Amino acid sequence: MTTPDPRLSINQATIKRANLAAALRATADNGVQAIGLWREPVNEVGLPTAASMLADSGLRFTTHCRGGFFTLDEGRARRAAIDDNRRAIEETATLAAAGADGSTAVLVLVAGGLPEGSRDLAGARECVRDALGELAPDAAAAGVTLAIEPLHPMYVSDRAVVSTLGQALDLAADFDPSVVGVTIDTFHVFWDPQVLDQIARAGREGRIATYQVCDWKTPLAADVLLSRHYPGDGVIDFASLTRAVLDAGYTGDIEVEIFNEDVWATEPGEAVRRTAAGFGAAVSPWLSATIDSA
Amino acid sequence: MTTPDPRLSINQATIKRANLAAALRATADNGVQAIGLWREPVNEVGLPTAASMLADSGLRFTTHCRGGFFTLDEGRARRAAIDDNRRAIEETATLAAAGADGSTAVLVLVAGGLPEGSRDLAGARECVRDALGELAPDAAAAGVTLAIEPLHPMYVSDRAVVSTLGQALDLAADFDPSVVGVTIDTFHVFWDPQVLDQIARAGREGRIATYQVCDWKTPLAADVLLSRHYPGDGVIDFASLTRAVLDAGYTGDIEVEIFNEDVWATEPGEAVRRTAAGFGAAVSPWLSATIDSA
Repeated sequence: MTTPDPRLSINQATIKRANLAAALRATADNGVQAIGLWREPVNEVGLPTAASMLADSGLRFTTHCRGGFFTLDEGRARRAAIDDNRRAIEETATLAAAGADGSTAVLVLVAGGLPEGSRDLAGARECVRDALGELAPDAAAAGVTLAIEPLHPMYVSDRAVVSTLGQALDLAADFDPSVVGVTIDTFHVFWDPQVLDQIARAGREGRIATYQVCDWKTPLAADVLLSRHYPGDGVIDFASLTRAVLDAGYTGDIEVEIFNEDVWATEPGEAVRRTAAGFGAAVSPWLSATIDSA
Repeated sequence: MTTPDPRLSINQATIKRANLAAALRATADNGVQAIGLWREPVNEVGLPTAASMLADSGLRFTTHCRGGFFTLDEGRARRAAIDDNRRAIEETATLAAAGADGSTAVLVLVAGGLPEGSRDLAGARECVRDALGELAPDAAAAGVTLAIEPLHPMYVSDRAVVSTLGQALDLAADFDPSVVGVTIDTFHVFWDPQVLDQIARAGREGRIATYQVCDWKTPLAADVLLSRHYPGDGVIDFASLTRAVLDAGYTGDIEVEIFNEDVWATEPGEAVRRTAAGFGAAVSPWLSATIDSA
């Protein structure tokens, strides 16, 4: 086995069928130094236990996935969503404190799609802006960065009304960059003719909270949510995107997050090794060897 | 049966299983005044016969579908593609002359995806620009407008490296607006946070060559190419988009182009009637009654 890139972080969704203990073990035992966690498996064991398990693993914590789903009209469901995001902020802060040196307190936010029966994209986008305004003080107090994730436009109606990096940066612009940043995920943004310019802008504005890589190929899976692939298995040019992210000043860990039934059916340790191999071949050549553990 | 909107045009792809004779009949017999044709059924009968059949139908001709697929490295295949586009330009001119008063000589262009084995989106996009440069003199001489169609970003790798209206307008900018314009198709552009601004820009720059409507809903079809629906059956806000197109000065016919196995399995006359009904309910309320037949 070759040594995984020191900047690689396994997003827990890549080994979705593993519980928290198994995910931490599969990651650490295979020489990967960092992990991004999901709320459900964390809450399955409870936050204090999860934090203790993470600390014992020796892994850096890179992101918590995920908050968001803000596109609800005002009312009980929206209040519940905001409250749930407040809990996610607390979880993020606790886990970042429990992770190894160099951990980052980043909560990934998926905006949410159109409310049932609605055709009002502009209105739904304003709901996202309003929710950020409500949550920003909590995030600031907790030392957590909210990382708005633009999702590929094929998810615009049912998952995320935020579709481009430029749009995410426009939403973030009202807030301090330490409180509201963006998630740059290659799968979601590679198609965008403006992506390199917007990555540079994100760097200038200090908003790159996390960089995530996975690959795109066609035909898309029948459930388009599950169309993500190991880096190198598709058509994404990781050279230009990764160089742009580094040139923009990003020095943190880089997550691989894959939703894919075949990957999920792979034994978790094996999936981690394949991820590390794909990352090593497709992404590592464009990275410098240094890690920001400030 | 209610009378179809006078600005409705049936794109032949909506009744894909009908040959040219059946398509013209299903359209005209149901009171629709205009049609957009596809190259394959036209060439099945031969261009002179197709032109004569179109003239006999009394229908306006709105677009010819389609040219493009330019993203090939220089060589024999690329030369063949350019030559084929020259034939498509001639077909467009001939059919527009054969159609009823108010016909328009518009050739819809789909850019093409990444060449086999390539990850170079920027390079593929330059191939499109180069092809436009080669074809523009032929289009100008024939009185044909090349209408670059941005396709939804989920098709970027296998079908069209032109993904946004802004990008299409940037490509068109080097050319006279009577020679190179854009296709605005609601399905492909509705998600774009910049779409209303870019429609206004397209109007200012005189580049709206055709406006096409169909709807989006999830889950997407297993073959995402076949996810298009009758206007009103999904989540697209035809009010804001149609008003923007009209405010931008577009006065022409409006096509409905649907790729959908269920629609294709419908008897063509019935599909035309359902299209007219959907259009009447979802689009007509936002139209003035006038048609530009200049």
